[in-house]
Amino acid sequence: MKKFNIIPAISSNIKEDIQDKINNKTKPIGSLGLLEQVALKIAIIQNTLSPTLNNPSIVVFAGDHGIAKDGEVNPFPQEVTWQMVCNFLNEGAAINVFSKQNKISLTVVDSGVNYDFDKHSNLIKAKIDYGTKNYLHQPAMSKEQCIQAISKGAKIVDDIYNNKSNIIGFGEMGIGNTSSASLLMSTVTGLPIEECVGSGTGLDNDGIIKKQEILKKVLEKHQIDTSPLNMLSTYGGFEIAMICGAILQAAELKMTILIDGFIVTSALLVASKINSNVLDYCIFSHNSNEQGHQKMLNYLNAIPLLNLGLRLGEGTGAALSYPLVQSAVNFLNEMASFKDATVSNKE
Amino acid sequence: MKKFNIIPAISSNIKEDIQDKINNKTKPIGSLGLLEQVALKIAIIQNTLSPTLNNPSIVVFAGDHGIAKDGEVNPFPQEVTWQMVCNFLNEGAAINVFSKQNKISLTVVDSGVNYDFDKHSNLIKAKIDYGTKNYLHQPAMSKEQCIQAISKGAKIVDDIYNNKSNIIGFGEMGIGNTSSASLLMSTVTGLPIEECVGSGTGLDNDGIIKKQEILKKVLEKHQIDTSPLNMLSTYGGFEIAMICGAILQAAELKMTILIDGFIVTSALLVASKINSNVLDYCIFSHNSNEQGHQKMLNYLNAIPLLNLGLRLGEGTGAALSYPLVQSAVNFLNEMASFKDATVSNKE
Repeated sequence: MKKFNIIPAISSNIKEDIQDKINNKTKPIGSLGLLEQVALKIAIIQNTLSPTLNNPSIVVFAGDHGIAKDGEVNPFPQEVTWQMVCNFLNEGAAINVFSKQNKISLTVVDSGVNYDFDKHSNLIKAKIDYGTKNYLHQPAMSKEQCIQAISKGAKIVDDIYNNKSNIIGFGEMGIGNTSSASLLMSTVTGLPIEECVGSGTGLDNDGIIKKQEILKKVLEKHQIDTSPLNMLSTYGGFEIAMICGAILQAAELKMTILIDGFIVTSALLVASKINSNVLDYCIFSHNSNEQGHQKMLNYLNAIPLLNLGLRLGEGTGAALSYPLVQSAVNFLNEMASFKDATVSNKE
Repeated sequence: MKKFNIIPAISSNIKEDIQDKINNKTKPIGSLGLLEQVALKIAIIQNTLSPTLNNPSIVVFAGDHGIAKDGEVNPFPQEVTWQMVCNFLNEGAAINVFSKQNKISLTVVDSGVNYDFDKHSNLIKAKIDYGTKNYLHQPAMSKEQCIQAISKGAKIVDDIYNNKSNIIGFGEMGIGNTSSASLLMSTVTGLPIEECVGSGTGLDNDGIIKKQEILKKVLEKHQIDTSPLNMLSTYGGFEIAMICGAILQAAELKMTILIDGFIVTSALLVASKINSNVLDYCIFSHNSNEQGHQKMLNYLNAIPLLNLGLRLGEGTGAALSYPLVQSAVNFLNEMASFKDATVSNKE
């Protein structure tokens, strides 16, 4: 497996100059709040006083989950995974609407959907298998499959980077994948599974309790250590493993990474155990309504840009937050300084 | 004074149809969170299943404040008001950058700045006077001036509406105007002035305490009733009175209104005492970092779209929230339904 050990912690010899530039804009110091932090971070990542956002991209990875076949953890049937992939390709889903609005290139990846798709110019075929195994009985995937998924995720990012993109977000589709994310979250953070399970696409309270019981059994069955490869291969899914590889590769390429919701953040939790420097490249787009997400963000000391009560996935939070990231870069590049505008500063 | 008594409470005979349309989009019910509420509200305002956002506009009203001449409540000197107006006209301020990015028309109004501006195509000259009087000693303006300001604000909105705009936000510039907003807030809500005063453009703790003491004296001096005209004319400013008239007129014209931060919300508090139906037309763009703002929003039962720690004014929160409003309208118009996309619904 690729080691991803060359991701540098971000640093810049011009950090103070960037902060000075922000502080000298015609506004009270700090008055653009979180946007100032985003501007600083992107300028440091790019090591420039005038950062740019080039060819923004979102990649949606789709995969099926063995656990979802029983329908006990998921209100929607498994077939919705492939149906929604078709909806993405036909530009009918929320992520299509928001990506189009915000001029973000959208790519869809079959990471392991239980369906054979026709050829389509916006679909990357990277299927590892027709869905993962059910982790109630065995690991979701083999270690070889997991390594393959991480590599494929990394390769996809490489291609997008070579197409001159320097900012990327990830989304996912996979009926049952909040269960994988909850298992990964509990294993990485050490929080009890009850705190990591939410309603997913719409379980009621009884459904959530049942999901907690099932996932508790899964954790008891496997009792794995927290090596990243063990966690990912045991709890899956293919789309999460690919996102993990994609995030690591994006950081290695010094791209700015827009982190979406609960599932993508679970992939980031694992990625950060492979190389914690990856966090330096992340902007947290939103706090999802899925109850574990806020705790994930707390664990990562992350402050999200949006808090809209979203719980849709697909990368929609990343797409919706993108105009704010643009605003951060734009104020840094375009606003006048006190000196430029001959405005008196604070007395 | 115009009565604004014909603003209807919003209602729609197709409200259930709009909600059905939202619920049948290819996503779990409610999973777009606050965006679903925004979509519903705009569709009801426009009484259509397919709302549109036409010629979005932001108007920044600028005025000076008698209280600011002493410099005791404001860290920046009064001259910054006119200097920032020039910065707006030269497109160097944050509101210029964000309006340009989000394709929002920006208009600047001299409501009562202590300066004579040259003619400029983007400046509307509506000066009531060269700044308000200092309310430590006398009412900020006469009742006649106040009525004039409300009318001028309404007229400016009329012109923008006639230019085929159906969504409008307001911003402000006026050194010292957080003090006016705090006084109005305390008078309307009945909250003690201490809870209504914050750091403005950057007071430290001692400065905030001094500001509280000064504003307490102001309230004790005037002891006015809560008639809107009394409140506005006593505590000003000209820009706030104009925004009050502008908000009321926009509601009367059934425009969607993007409410910005602390100052604009203080104008809305007064407007809502003239006709509470105005609130039906408002979308709350953000929760400002100015400490009284969250309490204003609580008082109005308002849930803001953004919470970025902004405290800049100028309408920047309204401009930054606009892409989210577009996303709300776009998902309603453009997403496929379960039926369109042949996606299985929840079992």
